[in-house]
Parts: sequence; structure tokens; C-alpha cells
Amino acid sequence: MADDALVIFTPSGKRGRFAHGTPVLTAARQLGVDLDSVCGGRGICSKCQITPGYGEFPKHGLHVSETALSEWNEVEARYDRIRGLKEGRRLGCQAKIMGDVVIDVPPESQVHRQVIRKAATAQVMIMDPATHAYYVEVAEPDMHEPSGDFQRLEAAMKEQWQIEGLEAYPVLLRRLQPILRKGEWKVTVILYKDHHGKARILDIHPGFWEGRLYGLAIDLGSTTIAAHLCDLRNGNVLASSGLMNPQIRFGEDLMSRVSYAMMNAGGDVEMTKAVRAAINDLATTIATEAGVNPRQIVETVFVCNPVMHHLLLGIDPVELGQAPFALATSESLSIPARDLELDAIHENARLYILPCIAGHVGADCAAVALAEEPNKSEDMVLIVDVGTNAEILLGNKDRVLACSSPTGPAFEGAQISSGQRAAPGAIERVEIDPVTKEPRFRVIGSDLWSTDPGFAEATAQTGITGICGSGIIEVVAEMRMAGLLDPSGLIGSAEQAGTARLVPQGRTHAYVLHDGTATGGPLITVTQGDIRAIQLAKSALYAGARLLMDELQIETVDRIVLAGAFGAHISPKHAMVLGMIPDCPLDKVTSAGNAAGTGARIALCDISARAAIEAEVLRIHKVETAIEPRFQEHFVAANAIPHATAHFPELAKIVTLPDVGFNTSGTEGGRRRRRG
Amino acid sequence: MADDALVIFTPSGKRGRFAHGTPVLTAARQLGVDLDSVCGGRGICSKCQITPGYGEFPKHGLHVSETALSEWNEVEARYDRIRGLKEGRRLGCQAKIMGDVVIDVPPESQVHRQVIRKAATAQVMIMDPATHAYYVEVAEPDMHEPSGDFQRLEAAMKEQWQIEGLEAYPVLLRRLQPILRKGEWKVTVILYKDHHGKARILDIHPGFWEGRLYGLAIDLGSTTIAAHLCDLRNGNVLASSGLMNPQIRFGEDLMSRVSYAMMNAGGDVEMTKAVRAAINDLATTIATEAGVNPRQIVETVFVCNPVMHHLLLGIDPVELGQAPFALATSESLSIPARDLELDAIHENARLYILPCIAGHVGADCAAVALAEEPNKSEDMVLIVDVGTNAEILLGNKDRVLACSSPTGPAFEGAQISSGQRAAPGAIERVEIDPVTKEPRFRVIGSDLWSTDPGFAEATAQTGITGICGSGIIEVVAEMRMAGLLDPSGLIGSAEQAGTARLVPQGRTHAYVLHDGTATGGPLITVTQGDIRAIQLAKSALYAGARLLMDELQIETVDRIVLAGAFGAHISPKHAMVLGMIPDCPLDKVTSAGNAAGTGARIALCDISARAAIEAEVLRIHKVETAIEPRFQEHFVAANAIPHATAHFPELAKIVTLPDVGFNTSGTEGGRRRRRG
Repeated sequence: MADDALVIFTPSGKRGRFAHGTPVLTAARQLGVDLDSVCGGRGICSKCQITPGYGEFPKHGLHVSETALSEWNEVEARYDRIRGLKEGRRLGCQAKIMGDVVIDVPPESQVHRQVIRKAATAQVMIMDPATHAYYVEVAEPDMHEPSGDFQRLEAAMKEQWQIEGLEAYPVLLRRLQPILRKGEWKVTVILYKDHHGKARILDIHPGFWEGRLYGLAIDLGSTTIAAHLCDLRNGNVLASSGLMNPQIRFGEDLMSRVSYAMMNAGGDVEMTKAVRAAINDLATTIATEAGVNPRQIVETVFVCNPVMHHLLLGIDPVELGQAPFALATSESLSIPARDLELDAIHENARLYILPCIAGHVGADCAAVALAEEPNKSEDMVLIVDVGTNAEILLGNKDRVLACSSPTGPAFEGAQISSGQRAAPGAIERVEIDPVTKEPRFRVIGSDLWSTDPGFAEATAQTGITGICGSGIIEVVAEMRMAGLLDPSGLIGSAEQAGTARLVPQGRTHAYVLHDGTATGGPLITVTQGDIRAIQLAKSALYAGARLLMDELQIETVDRIVLAGAFGAHISPKHAMVLGMIPDCPLDKVTSAGNAAGTGARIALCDISARAAIEAEVLRIHKVETAIEPRFQEHFVAANAIPHATAHFPELAKIVTLPDVGFNTSGTEGGRRRRRG
Repeated sequence: MADDALVIFTPSGKRGRFAHGTPVLTAARQLGVDLDSVCGGRGICSKCQITPGYGEFPKHGLHVSETALSEWNEVEARYDRIRGLKEGRRLGCQAKIMGDVVIDVPPESQVHRQVIRKAATAQVMIMDPATHAYYVEVAEPDMHEPSGDFQRLEAAMKEQWQIEGLEAYPVLLRRLQPILRKGEWKVTVILYKDHHGKARILDIHPGFWEGRLYGLAIDLGSTTIAAHLCDLRNGNVLASSGLMNPQIRFGEDLMSRVSYAMMNAGGDVEMTKAVRAAINDLATTIATEAGVNPRQIVETVFVCNPVMHHLLLGIDPVELGQAPFALATSESLSIPARDLELDAIHENARLYILPCIAGHVGADCAAVALAEEPNKSEDMVLIVDVGTNAEILLGNKDRVLACSSPTGPAFEGAQISSGQRAAPGAIERVEIDPVTKEPRFRVIGSDLWSTDPGFAEATAQTGITGICGSGIIEVVAEMRMAGLLDPSGLIGSAEQAGTARLVPQGRTHAYVLHDGTATGGPLITVTQGDIRAIQLAKSALYAGARLLMDELQIETVDRIVLAGAFGAHISPKHAMVLGMIPDCPLDKVTSAGNAAGTGARIALCDISARAAIEAEVLRIHKVETAIEPRFQEHFVAANAIPHATAHFPELAKIVTLPDVGFNTSGTEGGRRRRRG
């Protein structure tokens, strides 16, 4: 065995014996070591950099001499001269194995490296995007073997990259010949190869192309469209941006948009046009922000609820507005982005939409499942994606259930008298002193509380304009904790609660949170109607969760994850005071941020995740709240504030506050009581 | 075995035993008998009609009683009432086997029936088109199993038709839901399933759809675009139509179009637009002519030379104008027709282009190979597709060679002083009396000879306008046979040949074929330049054929097939006098008509033919005339008229005519001589 050498790769630990003179890249490929290469070992791309280790490796019983690899060659010297090679690095395709050696593959040389997907949780994902660049050398045409240029490109891809069955859009056939000749029969192929094995050429560049490939992960919500621009090589998010869904002018919530489509001929087409135009705008904006040419965006991944899904695809959503809520298609879709008129990006860019789980439980919920992986959880986890509709997942590695609950837009500040969207000037945090009943609050755009010095100056520009979703939850919960509400949700009178901030309003009362009228600003109050709207929303959310718990025959969950952009801002304490979520230790309630967006990003960066979620969606058991009588029961039973206390001792005191007096002071409360 | 019965199907002869009560359609399917059904046995489509035979069948040792099939049922009675069922016919899905029986499947109930593809030769082809209608019953949506409508359609197609892996254009997903509901969950799917197993939905109709599906077989020539409109159920040609290729305004022949593309920026785009617009016009015209809605044309098959191929696809043909004549792509293409802006037909219609054989030997030659099948020929066959370029195939079941020969447009009447396209008024047949040297001729549009009574009246409307391709071949051959030309092609003087029809023209002579000047018509002559042009063209054609014969090391061929619209009009005798084609018994020279068009029609009607020609094209050995020194040798050697006589005894006399005198009478002839 004098002519071969032991080679150990780190961090994989893969090892094997190779003949002297074997290039490191060749050895890595034979062992299945994850070592990148775009040029296929021609010393052009420099992606296969490795770091040989010299000296003693007692763990492996190895002494590695300085002569274990061949000396620097001209290719490496040239690369170092022009680009600079890090100290200790070699090019894997140039360095040849001459003796026993330990070779480290640094993270940036790994194709399928793990990347942190969320800073907060340090969760990792594997980089394995569908689209890669491949450098190939194509045989020149020969009159004696008159195959087409495309067929010789196919043969080169097969021979040099073991990739077969290439497809190309006619538009690329049109450009192929001049590109091959310009590159002198060397070209870089941008290839989309999906998890079903389809290989489609998206672009061809003459010679070795050093450009980068980008993808957009898009969370297409009813209210906002949010996108991450990702570098497809390393998964880095270069920019994140969002804009309002322009469909809002056709209806605030999903059902009003479905109604618009039903009531107006061509209404769905209008909405489809509007959302596609917005996505094009967003793509251009986000690329410009990151200093990237939008034409280098070669992939898009969409997550969205079923109505947005249909409107994006140009499908009339009318069937989603009525039982049995049939989706036109539930499976994932992989199509050319230009089929949906997304023409701001690369002309051959691909578009992937995650599968929908059911007519009410969309690709956004599938994305949450992909990001949070309840199907891999040891403990029983409840995941709530709070938006206009709440998507709810419950389960663990044994079984996962899903449903959608019609919370309505109250949690987003709509249908609330002083409600508004989360925007500068909106009240987002509230505290009410249980003794004085005086409030303090914070508004978006400032870190100061309203009682802090300098608050007026800090908010002078934005003003104090209303209450956003998280603010409305806090203020209602705080009112309850301060004894301004009875358990049925009825607001007491000034006399009953002992504060002039409670003012009569019709036959009920309202709480004055902020009076800006003296300075020309609004009077911000919380009315009985607002309380009722929040009660309806939180009861719906709670009832959905309970329905899934019934299905699993459990009374408690081990942990709760609040997902959604709004979920990121909800205070778990207030959510529990309000009774939005089932009983659970407070420290087991976490926020997942925009989990749907994270799921989209994972699907963008890793095609195996696409396969995984497509399979998982078929396993998730769907529960339809609309036809389940127990949903109504839970809904009615969940009306009180709060209705579950075991894990929140402070609340035990609050529920002892008198509620007798309130019950007779207004017919509205009495009516509600009777119904309960 | 009292409970089962022997069933024998004719004409297939397939037989088997089946339990009493088995529907005939079920028995046929189990035995693999080719019995049609669109509705899958629901008694809706009536495609599965059969004819039971009763009485004695001594050959099978069977006596079939009248009770061998169940009695007429209500479904059959209703069908007979409404549509009428032919005497003796039953519906195979309704009639149940009750005893031993012989069942005949009439041709119109066979899916893969053979149809005559050319009346002249009685050749047959199998009907097996890519696009079929399938009636399916789809499960209604269920909130408890919330799959999409498309997924339930997929499941139905799998269960009821064993077809999997359906793909649908987004545009169909858009229409799916209302169609399913309008059809009350019964729909007819128009499915394109190609020879690679791809299954793509082209359309969906509510309920059982009784419409017909049509296809266009298009021979896209440099000069004319010809199309057949075919019924995809039975292969019938409903209409055939053609129009001029509008690219003619960019250049008469292929190379001048390539030049136009090279010399004018965007020139290729102009030509692409022009030809696509013409194809849309042609599709509309031909459908209107046949009384068919062009939207029911769901498939198109194209055959064309490589330059037309590239211009149709929108590929700049510049590489085809210079060695090594590299095609952008040589394989067949199966794409949506709308990718090529063919929007006059069904919006989801498919387009199939046959593979090209080489940079000079296109999909049209592949189509000729498909129609004429030299690869299945026992004897050695030479197939010549005569056009602006001649495509030549030579071979038998052992081996087939192909080449293209640059005949130039002389055979089509171009570059001939009195030449014109084949159109009413053009001289197409010529005879010259060897004694008087007087001509008689026929023009397109009349069956009379110019010497017949009534000829003047018959041609009064069209006039006598020029000589078309077949006419020019005949007149040159006749001139030779009448002793007006010497073997080198030199025209003699009036004195030498003894006729005043030979007139001086510069330093050479011309033959006056028709003088219409007295009545305001043209003077139609055959000049020395015309003779030279025809000599060049015929030498090129002959040299190409010889080159292939050299490759096979043969001196003679067993038979010759003249293909092409022009080939259909060439008189074999004159072609041989001229020396266009190698030596061969005259009765072994046949015309195949528009074999390329026939090949297109076969590929349209039978997907197995597509697979066959794709495989065959890879086996055909291509010979490139442009780089083969022997081509030049053969070309020069073939200049004389004629140069091969063995099979045409009359010619033996002709070549004995004096040629000495001609050789000195004009410098042009002398020059030509020296070169030879």
C-alpha cells in the first residue's frame, strides 16, 4: 500500500485510501464528502477550497507531513495572486494527495452546509437549493456527427455533472448558439433541479459565470406582503421588505374579498392583477435595496392562505367562501413565475407554492408546520398563527392536527372603534394601575412609556393615532386585571369601578385610554363594542384550539407557540389573561415570529424541505371548525375573561373581583349573559 | 364450467372464458381487445359498439345461440331511439355475456384501427393519437377530506382510466371548479399523453362532451406552407390547404433568408413573425373550409427544413448558413403551440416538431423517412425529395444514409429566364417532335395539349405565362431527345438542328417554346443560361445520390422514389433523360407525392410513429456534401445530358446524335467543356 494514502475529511469524518496523485476534490467526491465545485475541477471557480492539517493527529493515529499534498501549482498561485487565497487554504481540485492527510472542508466550501435560520432560536437548515450554476465544456459541432448544439450541451452535462433529462424553454434555445460561441464552447448553466428530479435550464452564460443567484421567499398575507431576498448559495437574507396587499381596497378581510369576487364580474381578475403587480413592485424594491439586479432572482417561494393562493394563481376564490370550501388544487405547485406575470425578476424564474392543508388552512399554515416542525416535537405543542384567520396546529411526533378559526380582523385592530394597523403612532403596549385605574402606554416608533419624560416630544411627529392589535389585547386584559371589566366582559360604570376614565356611552360604558382632543388629536377609548369584538375573536381562537385538544383527548398542552407577525408582538401574559390560548405555564408560551415566512425561506433554500412538507401535509389531520358542533360549544364557553387560571396565579385574585354590580347596569351585558 | 362462457373476438382472434353476466367491454379489456370507450362503460359514449355473431361457427367449433348475450336493455333502447343503432349492433358496455359467443369489433369501434394513409399506395397507419377524450366521474369535495378539486380529478383519472401524473396549465386550474360543478362532478377531460408518458390536460368540458378533436399536419416549406386538417379519432383528412410562405419577401431561397438574417438586425425576428402569422391564417382558413371551429384543433405537427425549423422556433438561422452548419437543437420538440404564438387554434394546443437529421437535412427529410420507411425496405431504395434543396435518403433495412444537395431553385422555376412557380398558366408538360422539332405543351389549369382544338379558349383566362419546374425539366430533356442539345448541354444553331425555333441570343442560342407576343403575351424561350442552371441543379442532385451510393459501395439502386410536391409532377422518363437520378429501371421510379406531409400526418395520428422516427433519425448516417471532395467530382462528372443509359434504351439512340458541331459554335460551351 506504499502507493496509496489515508485521507480523513473533517468535519464529516469520512475517510478512505487513495492512490498518490489523486486530487483532493476527486477523493472527496468518491467518499461523498460535501465539497463544492461549480467548474467541475478545472481550477476556475475556487469553490473547492480546503484546509489540510499537518502535524500530529493522535485521535486518528496519524502524523501528517508537509509533503502530504502536492506543492502549490500555477493555478493556485494565479488564484492567490488575483483573488487571494486564505492562509493555509488550497484548491481541492489542484492539490493532489501524496501521503496520509487530514483535510478540513471549511463551511463556505460545503454545498449543503447548515445555516442558522433564526437568530433567536439558533435553529439550522441545510442549504440545498433547487437552482445551481454548473460550468461545462461543450463539444464543438462536427459535420460528421451533426447533433444540435443543445444535444451536445446535454451530453456535456451528463458527462461532466451526471445530470440528465434537461429541459429548456424555447427562449433559451434561441440564445444558445451565440452564447456557446461567445464562451468558446465553455458555458455556465443555471439549472433548476427540483425534488421531483425535473431538470430545467433557466439561463446560460458564456464562459465561467461568477454572478450570484437569488431567491425570494414571500409571505403573501391578506393585509401585507412580506418578502425575504436570499442568496441561494449560503441562505443569507440580504434584505427583507413588505408592503400592503393592494387587494385591501376590494375588502379588508378574506371573506369580503371572496364576496367582492362573487358580486362583481371580473372582480377576481382585478384582485389577481393587483396582487401580481404588487409582487413585481416588491421584488424590484427589495432587489434595489440589496443592490441586486432583480433579473438575478431565479426562484420565488410563496406561502399564503387559500384565498390569496387562488387569487395569486388567478383562480376565482368563490368556492372558498361557502361549504364545503373546496380548493381548486391543494398540492404544491412548481411553475414558471412568468405564468403568473411575475416579470420583474428573471424571465425564466421558477415559482413554488407550498401545498394547502385544507380550504381554510393554507400554504401559510403548511409553512408554519415546516418551520416549527410539530411533527418532530417530543412534547405536545400548540402553534397558533394569529391573523385575520387563526391557523392552529396541535400535535407531536405521533400526530398533528390542523384547523382554521374565524377570529375576524379584531386582533389586527380592525372593527375596533379606535383600532388601527400596526404603524407608527399606534398604541401597542398598555398598563393600567389596578389602584388608580390610570393607564400608561407605548406607541410604535418610540421606546418611551407615555408617563416617561420626553414622551410628548418623542411622539410629536407620529402623534398618537389609535390602538393596534397587540395594544387592544393588552388594554382589554389590563382593564380586566384592574377590575374595570367583570368576567363576562361588561365594562363597569365610573361609580362601580371608582374612576372617571369610565364614561357612559349609550347604554354602556367606555374607558378613555388617551384624550388627545386638547391638542387636536383623537379621543382614544375602549368601548363595550370593542370588548365584545375581542371576546368573539379570542373565543374563536380558543375554541379552535380546544377542538383540536378534544380530538387528541387532552386537557392541557405542553407548550404554545404564537406565530405570525402579530403573534410576535402579543404579550403571552395578556393573551392568557384574555383567555386567547389554553392553560399553559407562561414560560412555555413563546413567539415564533413570522414562522410562515421562515417556512417559505426554508423551502427556498432546501428542496428536501419541499418534499418533506408535501409529505407531511398529507399526514396532517384537518378538522373543519365550521361543521363541528363542539366548536360552537367551546366558542360560547370561552366568552368569559378569563376562563382558565391554573398556570397564572395573579389571575386567581382578579377573578374574585365583584361582577354582580356590572350585570344589572347594562342590558348588553345581560343579553350576553343569557346567551352564555 | 357451466357458469362461464367462451368468448371469441374478431378480427383479433383473442379469446377467453368469462363468467356469465360479464359485460362485453369488460371481457374485451381483460383480453386486451382494441374496443373503444370514452365514457368508461357508462353507456354514454356509444363508442364500444360490437356485432355479436349467431349461428354456427365451424372454424371455432361453436354454435352461438340467440341468448348468448343479455337482452337489449334500457340504455341501448334509449340510444337506438335517439341516435339509432345499426342493425345487429350492441353496446359493449351494456350487453352481458350469457353463453359462448363470437363478437366482432367493427373498425369504427377500434381505437387503434388501421387507416389508409395514401389512396395511391394503400399504405396503412395505426390510429394512436396523443390526444384523447376521457369521461370521468369525480368525487365531490368533502370537508373531512379536504383535497383540492384537481386532486380528486387526478384520483378519478387514475381509478377510472389508470392514468397518472397529470399536469395542467394554470389556465385550466382557473376553469376547473365551475366546470366540475356545471357537469355535476362528471366531466370530459381532453388529455394529451405523449410517447414519453407525459400526461397533460388540454381542456375540460362539463359532462359527457361529444365534440371532436382535430389536428394539423403542417409541411412548412421555404416556398409554400401546406397543411392537412385531420380528425384525430379516425385520421380522416377533412381539408387540405396551402399558402405561400410570406418569408419569400425576405429571400427566395433558404440561403438568401439566412443572409437576410445576417445582414439585418432583427431580420430573423421579422421572418419568424411573418411565418407564425401565416400559420395562424392557414389554420383559420383550413378550419373554416372544413366547417370546424379552429379552437378544436388541439395538436399541430410540423415538418420543415432546418432553416424553417429555426425560424419557426424563433432561432436565428445564421449558424445554418456556414460550416459546420450547427443546428441549435436537433431533437424533436414537444411544446405548447402558444409558445410559438400559434393562437388561432386551441389555447392549450400542443406542437410537435419532428427531429432534424443534420444541419442541412431537416425534419422534413425525417418525415419522408417516416412516410417511406427506407429502414424497412428489403430492396435498396433511393428517395429524393426535390425542392430548393434536395434531401436524399438511400438505404434498406440494414442501413440508411441521408444527405442534402444544394440543387438551388432552378427545379422550382426560379433562375430560369421564363421560369415561374407552378400556378395556372405555367407550362408543365412539354413534348418536342424529334423530326419537326416543333413543341406541344400543356399548362396548369387545362388538360389540353397546345395542339388540341380548344386549347386557346381553355387557356384564355390564365394565359400562357411561363414554365414551371416540371415543365423546365421536360423541355430540356425533350430538347436533348430532339437533338437540339448536345451531350454537354450546348444548344445548337438553327442550321445545325434544322429548325427556325432555335434563335441566336448573344453568343449562344435559345429555343422558342411559345411566342405569345402577337396577342400581348410573353415570348417563352429556353436559353443557354436556363440549360446551364438545370445542369447545375441536376448535377447536384445526382452527385448527392452518387455520394451515398459510394458510401454503400453500390453502383445501382433497386428503386427510386421521387418525393415532394414537385416530385409528384416530374415525369420519371424526363428525369432520367436529364440525368437527375441514377440509372434504374423506369418502372421502378415512382412518385411518393408530398411524403413529408404524409410523414407529418402519420406523426399526428400515431404517437408510436413519433417514437419510431426519433429513434430512426439517430440511426440514419448523415453524409455532409459540403465537405466531401467526391461530391465535387460527381458533380462535375454528372454535367452531361444524359450520363447513364442502361435502363432506358431510347436514350441509347439519342446519345449518338452529333455533338461535334455544337462544341465550336459558342465559347460558353467550350468553357464548360474544359472544366468538365
